[in-house]
Parts: sequence; C-alpha cells; structure tokens
Amino acid sequence: MSEQHFFNLHDETQGIARRLAEGMTTRIFPGNNAMISVVRIAPNAAGTVHSHPQEQWGVLLEGDGVRSQDGAEHAVTAGDFWHTPGGVARGFRAGPAGALVLDVFSPPREEYRKGGSGFEG
Amino acid sequence: MSEQHFFNLHDETQGIARRLAEGMTTRIFPGNNAMISVVRIAPNAAGTVHSHPQEQWGVLLEGDGVRSQDGAEHAVTAGDFWHTPGGVARGFRAGPAGALVLDVFSPPREEYRKGGSGFEG
Repeated sequence: MSEQHFFNLHDETQGIARRLAEGMTTRIFPGNNAMISVVRIAPNAAGTVHSHPQEQWGVLLEGDGVRSQDGAEHAVTAGDFWHTPGGVARGFRAGPAGALVLDVFSPPREEYRKGGSGFEG
Repeated sequence: MSEQHFFNLHDETQGIARRLAEGMTTRIFPGNNAMISVVRIAPNAAGTVHSHPQEQWGVLLEGDGVRSQDGAEHAVTAGDFWHTPGGVARGFRAGPAGALVLDVFSPPREEYRKGGSGFEG
C-alpha cells in the first residue's frame, strides 16, 4: 500500500481489484491487522455461500440485500452492519438497487493481498 | 456482545456508549480481533490529538472535517477513508455539518470494552 493512507470509497482506481462473482467486484486495502474490502454488487447479483477463519465485520453503505449467515437469512438496508465470527458460512445477495458493502477482515485474508477472482484467493 | 450480530449505524440504543470529547460520542461494538466504533461528532467539534498502539481504519460516512494524522492535516468529505498505523498521533475536527465516522480498531482497544469517557479508557 506504499505510504498512501487516504482513500475514497468511490475511487475505482484505488485498492487491489478482485472479481468475487458475476456482478460482484471488490477493491482490497490491506493493513497489518485488519483489511478493508469495498464490494460493489450489481442489482440482484449474489455471491456463493462460503467460509473462512478470519473474523469479519460488514457495513451496508448503499442499497439493500440479504445477508446469509450461519444458515439464516437477514434482510438488510443501508446503514445496517453485522459481525461474522470466523468459520461461519456467509453470503450476500443484492436487492434490485444493487449494494455497496464495506467488509473488514481481521486478521487480513492473506490470499487477498494480490489481485484475482473468487472468494478463495 | 451476547449473540447479537446485526446492528444499525443510526440506532443510538446499540453498542457501548462512550463520550470521547465535548460534542463527540461513540458507540462501541467489540469483536475478538477488530472493534467497531461509530462516532457522532457535532458541528465544529474536535477531539484531542492522541495516540494508541492499535492499528485503525476510519471511514467518513457523513459530513466533512479534518483528519489530523502524523502531524499533517487532511481535509476529508463523506466517502473518504483512511488507514492509521499504531502509534501515530491522530485527531479529528468536524466541519460545520458535523460528521459520522466509522472507526475500526485492530486489535480491539481493551479499555473501550466498557463505557466511559475520553480517548484513554
């Protein structure tokens, strides 16, 4: 990340680009202890339900959708945020307006420090 | 945090309340590896410049202001976010519209797991 410390959620030139799924892209900003992921989700797009050992916080910045977590579905709208313990099955499906989600991974997902595609690295 | 995992940025009844400074209050949501702090800052209110060893990310969700970091001042508006390494002097002063800031501390600030006042615990 060199010496840059100031960013903007809407600047698509910043961060490490990753395509998570059809209609779901992210930009990754690695830290030492926590990693930021700014996820843009097209209307009605969905990611596969998956799991990883890192703790996660998610904040729905724009739009709405359904957060799947630990086998339950939670309807969420802009301003909602959630805590996902490591190892819990999780997924997200955007509503008709699409969604912008800020995710925090702690510790960082090491496989996301480089560009790529998918949820696995 | 018991078993609750879903929250809202604007629900003032959630989280552990802390008064950081005159016109600056926060609600704390502790995790195991990362802690969320939702900071509401009144128009033109400012916190003292301080430091702590935990890494921090900050996201300006609403309003504008000036982020002081490592001796430099950065004008920020809604959508800007920043990375603050541990040990760096930091502060925030809201503009005339006030501000809503999402902070992430990793590791968590243990002194913030209970209510209180000030930046120190």
